[in-house]
Amino acid sequence: MQVSELGEFGLIKRFRKSIKTDASVIKGSGDDCAVLAFDKDNYQLFTCDMIVEGVDFTLKDDASLIGRKALAISLSDIAGCGGIPRHCVVSLGMPKDTRVSFIDKLFGGLSRLAKEYKVNIVGGDISRAPRIVVDLSLLGLVEKKCLVLRNGARVNDLIFVTGAIGGASFGKHLSFTPRLKEARFLVENFKINSMIDISDGLAQDLRHLLEESRLGGIIFEGLVPLSARVSDFKTAVSEGEDFELLFTLSRSEAARLMGKRIKNFFPIGQVRDKKFGVKLLDRNNKEVDFFSNGFRHF
Amino acid sequence: MQVSELGEFGLIKRFRKSIKTDASVIKGSGDDCAVLAFDKDNYQLFTCDMIVEGVDFTLKDDASLIGRKALAISLSDIAGCGGIPRHCVVSLGMPKDTRVSFIDKLFGGLSRLAKEYKVNIVGGDISRAPRIVVDLSLLGLVEKKCLVLRNGARVNDLIFVTGAIGGASFGKHLSFTPRLKEARFLVENFKINSMIDISDGLAQDLRHLLEESRLGGIIFEGLVPLSARVSDFKTAVSEGEDFELLFTLSRSEAARLMGKRIKNFFPIGQVRDKKFGVKLLDRNNKEVDFFSNGFRHF
Repeated sequence: MQVSELGEFGLIKRFRKSIKTDASVIKGSGDDCAVLAFDKDNYQLFTCDMIVEGVDFTLKDDASLIGRKALAISLSDIAGCGGIPRHCVVSLGMPKDTRVSFIDKLFGGLSRLAKEYKVNIVGGDISRAPRIVVDLSLLGLVEKKCLVLRNGARVNDLIFVTGAIGGASFGKHLSFTPRLKEARFLVENFKINSMIDISDGLAQDLRHLLEESRLGGIIFEGLVPLSARVSDFKTAVSEGEDFELLFTLSRSEAARLMGKRIKNFFPIGQVRDKKFGVKLLDRNNKEVDFFSNGFRHF
Repeated sequence: MQVSELGEFGLIKRFRKSIKTDASVIKGSGDDCAVLAFDKDNYQLFTCDMIVEGVDFTLKDDASLIGRKALAISLSDIAGCGGIPRHCVVSLGMPKDTRVSFIDKLFGGLSRLAKEYKVNIVGGDISRAPRIVVDLSLLGLVEKKCLVLRNGARVNDLIFVTGAIGGASFGKHLSFTPRLKEARFLVENFKINSMIDISDGLAQDLRHLLEESRLGGIIFEGLVPLSARVSDFKTAVSEGEDFELLFTLSRSEAARLMGKRIKNFFPIGQVRDKKFGVKLLDRNNKEVDFFSNGFRHF
């Protein structure tokens, strides 16, 4: 069997089953970040993301945006848990004939974003590789009372996103703003029951959140904000790399959030019980199965 | 200019100059691990290493040894700082047509070594890539009083290694034992002034340790233990991936260590002042410049 038959999530599930961790691991594989014991008031967050030439970027892309992206996707994972990013290490693989000016730009984009979010670059590794590959590991902190995971959704919670969905293929995947500010505003002021960053597409990450919470839900197509350059709802919720946050909170907390009239939070659906499944109320007010239309990645 | 002209260490120096870190970073880029504030008695260690198909291993190698190596080289970095490994995340890039059985074996080798050293595998990332690439980031802890860096060597310190040098090309690079036990024995019982794990070859890593300490030194060729299958001293100290520890301690501490008659610690030289340079006393008792014989990697 080849890995393409099993798919990314099949492989991850396969590994995860065999892993045992000790009591210092509050949450291991299976969320945006690992959650580790740290001190009386805080947990440590730990996440890594690899980007590869020809898959996540091409050599025609602006090198500084490639470096920026390498860090931004991990910042988005820290945001997904409600945390504050702190320290990163960077592994960089590249062919021998890579131009130093290209690597300078890549590193420049990364270090400017690091500075913007007060992230310390504390180490790394440089290796020869057939294509450019950047793997970044990021540590963060989150107050115990602010930690949000995927598995905390409750029946009747409202489902929100932090911004327009779709459009990664038009360049947003290289220039997005990780939603750290929004995440901290949410966890400091509201009881957020569950949250995930949308890296695999709204459809896939909604599935992750609801599966981890062992619940169902309904999305109202007409409420989902779409990127300006996207016309097709199915494509928008499937293509991935939005790096918006998807989160749920109780109806009373949601009312309080909406009362603040802040532009960046959009209610798009509601959590239901497991038996209900995951449905879409489409533009004709027809309730259809959310995943029956080819929204799955694998 | 291409990166091959600048070399790995040229690139690292280039990046390092531009990096600023805050007070929670005790030691950033430039040692075996980054050293971060943790609690009253301990520092946190943070390191990453990338291995790439065709560079660090081939598909003819036993996949379980490839997975093992991905973790072992980071364990060796933790050993180099005198620490105890704790948690890792693993990024895995692979072509679509990679066999699941290969990845199973790779992950099996990694997770068996993790279990042996009580390391929690807490997360990861799986990505498509043109060749197999494994990047692993590892967290560890070290008591403040046990931390050893590269830069603490003192004039007249004796220089030791923990085992035979050379032989990586005969398979040792895939099956070596990271010297965690030896490192902990040393830092718990002796005042170790400086230490580094030998990943780039004895010659290169001796240079790193002495440059960071701003000192010189002399190595006695006749004292350096060589792997059984290596006949040529120059090759042995140049080829890299020994993953033994190179460390220095005062003559009185060295006498105490040698008095214990433990097999695994070999005195091979002595630290001198910067002006002295780095010399080799060869088998004819001739003092030669250590680096004049093509020992440099780049």
